[in-house]
Amino acid sequence: MARIIALHTHDVRFPTSLSLDGSDAMNPDPDYSAGYVRIRTDAADALEGHGFVFTIGRGNDVQVAAIRALDSHLRGRDVDEVLGDLGALWRELVHDSQLRWLGPEKGVMHMAIGAVVNALWDLKAKRAGKPLWQLLSAMSPEEIVGLVDFRYLTDVLTPEDALAILRQAEPGRARREADLLVEGYPAYTTTPGWLGYDDEKLDRLCREAVAEGFGQIKLKVGADLDDDIRRLGIARAACGPEVRIAVDANQRWDVAEAIRWMAALRPFDVAWIEEPTSPDDVLGHAAIARAIAPVPVATGEHMANRVMFKQFLQADALQVLQLDATRVAGVNENIAILLLAAKFGVPVCPHAGGVGLCEMVQHLSMFDAVSVSGSTEGRMIEFVDHLHEHFVTPVEVHGGRYRAPKAPGAGSEMLAGSLLGYAHG
Amino acid sequence: MARIIALHTHDVRFPTSLSLDGSDAMNPDPDYSAGYVRIRTDAADALEGHGFVFTIGRGNDVQVAAIRALDSHLRGRDVDEVLGDLGALWRELVHDSQLRWLGPEKGVMHMAIGAVVNALWDLKAKRAGKPLWQLLSAMSPEEIVGLVDFRYLTDVLTPEDALAILRQAEPGRARREADLLVEGYPAYTTTPGWLGYDDEKLDRLCREAVAEGFGQIKLKVGADLDDDIRRLGIARAACGPEVRIAVDANQRWDVAEAIRWMAALRPFDVAWIEEPTSPDDVLGHAAIARAIAPVPVATGEHMANRVMFKQFLQADALQVLQLDATRVAGVNENIAILLLAAKFGVPVCPHAGGVGLCEMVQHLSMFDAVSVSGSTEGRMIEFVDHLHEHFVTPVEVHGGRYRAPKAPGAGSEMLAGSLLGYAHG
Repeated sequence: MARIIALHTHDVRFPTSLSLDGSDAMNPDPDYSAGYVRIRTDAADALEGHGFVFTIGRGNDVQVAAIRALDSHLRGRDVDEVLGDLGALWRELVHDSQLRWLGPEKGVMHMAIGAVVNALWDLKAKRAGKPLWQLLSAMSPEEIVGLVDFRYLTDVLTPEDALAILRQAEPGRARREADLLVEGYPAYTTTPGWLGYDDEKLDRLCREAVAEGFGQIKLKVGADLDDDIRRLGIARAACGPEVRIAVDANQRWDVAEAIRWMAALRPFDVAWIEEPTSPDDVLGHAAIARAIAPVPVATGEHMANRVMFKQFLQADALQVLQLDATRVAGVNENIAILLLAAKFGVPVCPHAGGVGLCEMVQHLSMFDAVSVSGSTEGRMIEFVDHLHEHFVTPVEVHGGRYRAPKAPGAGSEMLAGSLLGYAHG
Repeated sequence: MARIIALHTHDVRFPTSLSLDGSDAMNPDPDYSAGYVRIRTDAADALEGHGFVFTIGRGNDVQVAAIRALDSHLRGRDVDEVLGDLGALWRELVHDSQLRWLGPEKGVMHMAIGAVVNALWDLKAKRAGKPLWQLLSAMSPEEIVGLVDFRYLTDVLTPEDALAILRQAEPGRARREADLLVEGYPAYTTTPGWLGYDDEKLDRLCREAVAEGFGQIKLKVGADLDDDIRRLGIARAACGPEVRIAVDANQRWDVAEAIRWMAALRPFDVAWIEEPTSPDDVLGHAAIARAIAPVPVATGEHMANRVMFKQFLQADALQVLQLDATRVAGVNENIAILLLAAKFGVPVCPHAGGVGLCEMVQHLSMFDAVSVSGSTEGRMIEFVDHLHEHFVTPVEVHGGRYRAPKAPGAGSEMLAGSLLGYAHG
């Protein structure tokens, strides 16, 4: 019998603030970082499960401390038993009555649980010899429902509702999986649009994005309206009329300001406005969405948990759902969110502006396409072209599409040299 | 010029799980704890500012790590400058763009900011030689408004709205302050109602509460409906028909279950139902409130920030607002919440079931009575009679009322012997 012998943690920080990669109206100088965990076992296969929380610098040590606080839940446990019921493990961690007080189900402690849950899925997929998306896609509807905690969801989504959604997507699973392996999954790029880039760089990167085959780009906005108008003009001229241009305010505005600002950007045919205000403000987003329709509101990267997603969908406060691989409590909670989105017929376009997020969210979107929504229509995964070189299985994006990953695991494993070379403190 | 020279932290844990004090449907065995901070300066007065985050055991070390992450913001700073503009200091801490990623404005990092902000208020009040409630109550409306960050609130509460509320309460400040000094502030007691207590203890403690002069008690519910019905029967018989009995489910239910359960408790004339479901679920609480009216819904102790309180008020999802001294980012954010409650005419009955919370929230309620809502009508502070002996200025509750504190400070200072004697690890 194999046992979990250790949770090793790493405080990894990349000095991205030096080049202003990742700069936006709320985050002028991020240092892309990871509160990282490696789960080791005493199995003969020597496989490790890797997971992390994405942060942007200061406080990454707090995140690492939170991951370490979960060690006692896992050390010494039977590997097969833990991996055999990750739904039960999720409930055990999230509903630990004392740790729960630190959230509940939000912030540092909840994200730490996400890192550990994702690391366990990475280990499970490696042991199965499959990429995570194919491991999940092959599960029966009943098995998938067993991974989800429906607490606080049943007024909107019951286990029976979820089963019905998954059964409806069962026919055609094999064909959609084969299609993904051939054609990949649509992507859009945020690479041109960071707020700290000058106009010349913006223009050049827009033209490169179009030449590379992207059908949508995204620009950061919200610091200065005149700048935004000028930059959108440059981007529209560089991209031409056919390429979609989304904008992202990173929570910069209050409700009335968001509505005013978006009215001023109306001439540029904006594909969506992302994070117009506080990620906690269901009613605020709903008011903005009503006022600026038909421009869709997109949000989710800072949404704390499935209860918040539930309400945004109930209130029609978002029209594009942007889940994040490391903000909620890992794969299990993201499956709940995919099911909620499918219930409401809202497309999921994951957040991936960060280190390692592209590598991870592609598995969730491809699982969604095969076994949940059964569609890639109106769906895209964000792509940002930096820091992929630190991963064992970096994403491959060609012609504006993510190529389906084939390596076993969840995509979350960093190179040992990067863990060491960018160790903080 | 005096400077801040250190933030000393303490991981303090009391073994309350041994006696089941504090036990409820979600927290069967809490160990009341504090992630504690002492702010020291090099001033000749040798005064220290004390603050803490209340937790219930495991993870208290994570909370302490988060407080330590704020050290670099304060070490070496001019004490007068920092204390002279705590509104600016609040914004600096909450909007630190890198630390903000760990919330934003929720969970471990936000609560750590609360501990530090509260410690600074404790220091400011001690230096002024006043209890916090009198220090705050004497500020001008303009000064009070300057303490509040209105970001994400302006669709509901603008600085002008806040000024109008505070100016309306200016006449009568002196009289209400004098009344509080003579008569104190109404209290209710949770001491009888912990779920782990047997029927005999429940009956005895209910009778004691009535004899001591409390007009309201509170019972924990939500684990088993038959038990709840039996225990409510015992409590109602022990208290008589005049004493109000509130119940508290500690987030145990989904929406439909809450409505069903409360229908079954209807014969007992319940004063309010507290935390029927997830503290994040604005729309769920609104649905429950509509279904069980006229029984009021009370919540707030686990609400992450002012944006959540704003929405609960907008949606009429709560009728009794229970702020907590250490869940949001300290005194400044609680002033924002008091102003929101006043705007909607909703009574504030603070949460104080925890170590040191009674000592702290009394200052907020008394400030509210003097200078914000201008009323104690329909308002009560929770009282739980344990662990007060660990504080330098423990609360005094007689005849069912909090006596107005007269010692300088915010009430948050633990005895040095308790910090040492209950140090964890």
